[in-house]
Amino acid sequence: MDKYDKVVELCRRRGFFWPSSEIYGGVAGFLDFGPMGTMLKRNIERRWRETFIQSHHGLVYEIETPVVMPARVFEASGHVENFTDVIVECLQCHKRFRADHLILEQAGEIQGIEGMSTKELDELISEKGVRCSECRGPLGKVSRFNLLFRTNIGPYSESVAYLRPEAAQGMFVNFKSIFNAMRERLPMGLAQIGKVARNEISPRQGPIRLREFTIMEVEFFFDPKAPGCTLIDEVSDVRLRLLTEDMVKTKTEEPMEVRVAEALKEGYIKTEWLAYFMALSTRFISELGAPTASQMFVAKLPDERAHYSAQTFDQLVRLDRWGWVEVSGHAYRTDYDLSRHIQYSGQDLSAFRKFQTPHPVRVTVAKPKVERISADYGKETGKILSAIKGIDPGALKSRLSSGPVEVDGLIIRSEYVEFLEKEETLSGERFVPHVAEPSFGADRLTYLALECAYTEREDRVVLKLPPSIAPVQVSVFPLVNRDGIWEKAFSIHDLVRRAGMISEFDDSGSIGRRYARADEIGCPFAVTVDYQTMADDTVTVRDRDSWEQTRVPVNGLKEFLWSRLAPLRFIT
Amino acid sequence: MDKYDKVVELCRRRGFFWPSSEIYGGVAGFLDFGPMGTMLKRNIERRWRETFIQSHHGLVYEIETPVVMPARVFEASGHVENFTDVIVECLQCHKRFRADHLILEQAGEIQGIEGMSTKELDELISEKGVRCSECRGPLGKVSRFNLLFRTNIGPYSESVAYLRPEAAQGMFVNFKSIFNAMRERLPMGLAQIGKVARNEISPRQGPIRLREFTIMEVEFFFDPKAPGCTLIDEVSDVRLRLLTEDMVKTKTEEPMEVRVAEALKEGYIKTEWLAYFMALSTRFISELGAPTASQMFVAKLPDERAHYSAQTFDQLVRLDRWGWVEVSGHAYRTDYDLSRHIQYSGQDLSAFRKFQTPHPVRVTVAKPKVERISADYGKETGKILSAIKGIDPGALKSRLSSGPVEVDGLIIRSEYVEFLEKEETLSGERFVPHVAEPSFGADRLTYLALECAYTEREDRVVLKLPPSIAPVQVSVFPLVNRDGIWEKAFSIHDLVRRAGMISEFDDSGSIGRRYARADEIGCPFAVTVDYQTMADDTVTVRDRDSWEQTRVPVNGLKEFLWSRLAPLRFIT
Repeated sequence: MDKYDKVVELCRRRGFFWPSSEIYGGVAGFLDFGPMGTMLKRNIERRWRETFIQSHHGLVYEIETPVVMPARVFEASGHVENFTDVIVECLQCHKRFRADHLILEQAGEIQGIEGMSTKELDELISEKGVRCSECRGPLGKVSRFNLLFRTNIGPYSESVAYLRPEAAQGMFVNFKSIFNAMRERLPMGLAQIGKVARNEISPRQGPIRLREFTIMEVEFFFDPKAPGCTLIDEVSDVRLRLLTEDMVKTKTEEPMEVRVAEALKEGYIKTEWLAYFMALSTRFISELGAPTASQMFVAKLPDERAHYSAQTFDQLVRLDRWGWVEVSGHAYRTDYDLSRHIQYSGQDLSAFRKFQTPHPVRVTVAKPKVERISADYGKETGKILSAIKGIDPGALKSRLSSGPVEVDGLIIRSEYVEFLEKEETLSGERFVPHVAEPSFGADRLTYLALECAYTEREDRVVLKLPPSIAPVQVSVFPLVNRDGIWEKAFSIHDLVRRAGMISEFDDSGSIGRRYARADEIGCPFAVTVDYQTMADDTVTVRDRDSWEQTRVPVNGLKEFLWSRLAPLRFIT
Repeated sequence: MDKYDKVVELCRRRGFFWPSSEIYGGVAGFLDFGPMGTMLKRNIERRWRETFIQSHHGLVYEIETPVVMPARVFEASGHVENFTDVIVECLQCHKRFRADHLILEQAGEIQGIEGMSTKELDELISEKGVRCSECRGPLGKVSRFNLLFRTNIGPYSESVAYLRPEAAQGMFVNFKSIFNAMRERLPMGLAQIGKVARNEISPRQGPIRLREFTIMEVEFFFDPKAPGCTLIDEVSDVRLRLLTEDMVKTKTEEPMEVRVAEALKEGYIKTEWLAYFMALSTRFISELGAPTASQMFVAKLPDERAHYSAQTFDQLVRLDRWGWVEVSGHAYRTDYDLSRHIQYSGQDLSAFRKFQTPHPVRVTVAKPKVERISADYGKETGKILSAIKGIDPGALKSRLSSGPVEVDGLIIRSEYVEFLEKEETLSGERFVPHVAEPSFGADRLTYLALECAYTEREDRVVLKLPPSIAPVQVSVFPLVNRDGIWEKAFSIHDLVRRAGMISEFDDSGSIGRRYARADEIGCPFAVTVDYQTMADDTVTVRDRDSWEQTRVPVNGLKEFLWSRLAPLRFIT
């Protein structure tokens, strides 16, 4: 058994997670989280919320938008067209595979396969002799399969909708409403923690590649002419391990380690906010238990990047079975999404940039000659006046210079309009904000934390989860269930619980077995109540990681535990 | 404008919520929550989690299962067959309506309409002259429309899946795995907070009737032979306002007020755990701001209940425009769901009940006469032996008494088997647990809290949200932005923030306007830093509800605020 198998076995036994709807044979790409897994996942989500949202209150706001969104949103975002994987079907057993994965499995590493056309993949399949991995049958032509889950809203089957593949679009379509409600200030980040769905062709990596998972992402809107990050000083000394685009191109494998300030100065990272979030992410992933030496950021090459991105770094962590696995993505989405939604919705989603000093500008003004128009058009004069008003005066002037202009069957002649030049003062201009996006998958991070925490000692599992995310923080044991010890232990369990910690009361089996059980769920502290407690009101507190035992007075227990649990919590 | 319109207007202006994907014209039945709405909703979810899950740790566990589940789950649960509404189409404009709602709109109150067949509804439409509410055209035949959102998993369109309409099924299909992981103890509650989707035919009540919303529900599993609630004493004095089934049948409108203990004694509520959760719900809804006099529980009549329920109470709260609206449902689901999943999956989802003293029982044992069988069957003797083993000995004995028994083309004769009677001791028996379910919609509760909190004073809105759920807890204002006052105020904002409160810093506009803004988002406390602060290190704390101002020393500010905010929080 490798570490992955061991973690998965522990997870089933102790109620962390397992394949979804297992009594019906399970569903590939879906997980069910049990009590321990859910508490762990909630804690990871809470720490992410504290790190990326709550500690930035006033700058980053959490919002919530539906999983089901109308088709128009994803036509605008480009997902209907571009959110596809390459698929190939066995001509013999008719099983379908993700074409690029199948080729890599059978032909080994192939540079640039992510950006290849279906035709290039067809050629590769024939050249390398790739066949069905199930029945060894010949393969058909490669085609593109859209990964959006499709459904219909309401009683008419024609109102197509999709399950969102990212929470981002909910932030983009609401940008303007929220920008207005929050007093039109930039920069402004919007964040979501919520479910997304991607209809992967054949997911086979358990918690690493899911069809439905919880995304945690920030869309951070800023003025591209004022791209400076106001918080950059707080992270400028954070060290990032980077593989830049150039390094990826030259197949460098060992990342360089640079300070954030240097990465910006050297232009490795194109915008300060992206760098800021990459620094926060390094800290966050470290807090979950992944050593910085097992982390790196890898730049995506242009043809590997999503259709909306001008620069993307994947944050990778090395796992035992799966190798380097993406745990977050950092994309500079520029104004792509807002511009597309402006185009598709016809709404103004721009912001206003005030000039430091107002600009004087010369503008053309069109003054209609009403009597002249009336002579030609009589009762329809109003229509001509509206038509003139509807065209930009500068454009109208230039068009009239080469002859009459027709608008909806009405003819506008140059004699109808007089053009004046006027001096005006512009106080500012409208622009479409740019966006930096850090994006995480909570389910994958839950697995990451478990693998990083998994250790064995004396043939037993000790799950060394960071106290800030451990599902259960304290276990309380009565040494025996008589002589008032059970009641005393229960009152201590209640005391700990009321102090805001998650406490578990365990009164069955030997103390050794109870310690083992607590170690397996990663509970940092076990408190044992014994005969001495009845005499001097002290308890034994046993540390999960060192197995050391300390005698602590009951009246100082709350502080003893909090001081060891609290340092990583936002609420102190 | 009625209160609903006023709340909705405020919600848009201050960033609580608005129709989803509004830049594309909105989508009926979907909401987007902005920063304030999301913080409010999260707080309501957190309080629910604290009330129903965390304060019951060891008894109730949160789990998380996917929104998308395979069709088989909802065939077993009965949703594919029964989760329908009645629909009718206009023959002229082809708009579709929910038939019962359309009839009620045009014909007034009709007793028992919820349980009527499509034929009965057709007759009602013709009898009452109900027509299309849009174009007055004639209506077609009433039919049933399934409210499940349908989709497909993976690259084969035949693997149908549905978006779950309740989180409950995720609890049922996982019951056994979790029961095993949590050491096979009953009672055991499983809870979920997550998205569900119901494809309502024509939702028209904004946040009250949504197609996608967040459900918060507990499935509480217990032994029907040991149905006592161990926590009932904690709530026995809670007063419930009840309309029992009998009162509903006799059209009583005014509920009776009874203590929980009495409601159980009189048999109004069939099981203690249901009563316990109804008591918790009364407290919870009160905490959100709904006075108990505006709450009641109404029993559903048998033909109004969901297909799985033996007793259901809806908890209703009176709203300004919508009248009595359901805010939670309390269903006694018995063993319906687990039994269906046992039947559909073929898995054993039962629990084991130990007898207090082992039961001696007489059992029949079948002893095959191998030589006699071998004489008839030769090489196929093994098959006959297996066939005999595969039938319950008592049943085989009784079947053989009326002649030979055929199994898969093999004939078993009475001469093949000798039957013995044996004394055995049974230590217990297997049974299918029963379930009590409290279920809430977080989005509707968010609206409820807003409407209950909405007040006006001197032509301004004051949102009197309970401090435990207010999105922003403290606002900090510098009186002026000079003379060190801005910096001092910011440092106080930072102090409050680091103490774990959500604090907003507001330095623009007059103090009066800033108070008004804080009142509109329901912020309980506003702290103003002025020239006196610079002299004596005190600040003015202004109370949202009384508008009273108190001078508080900065070094006691944290405690002053916490003591007023914290009483309703679980973490103290």
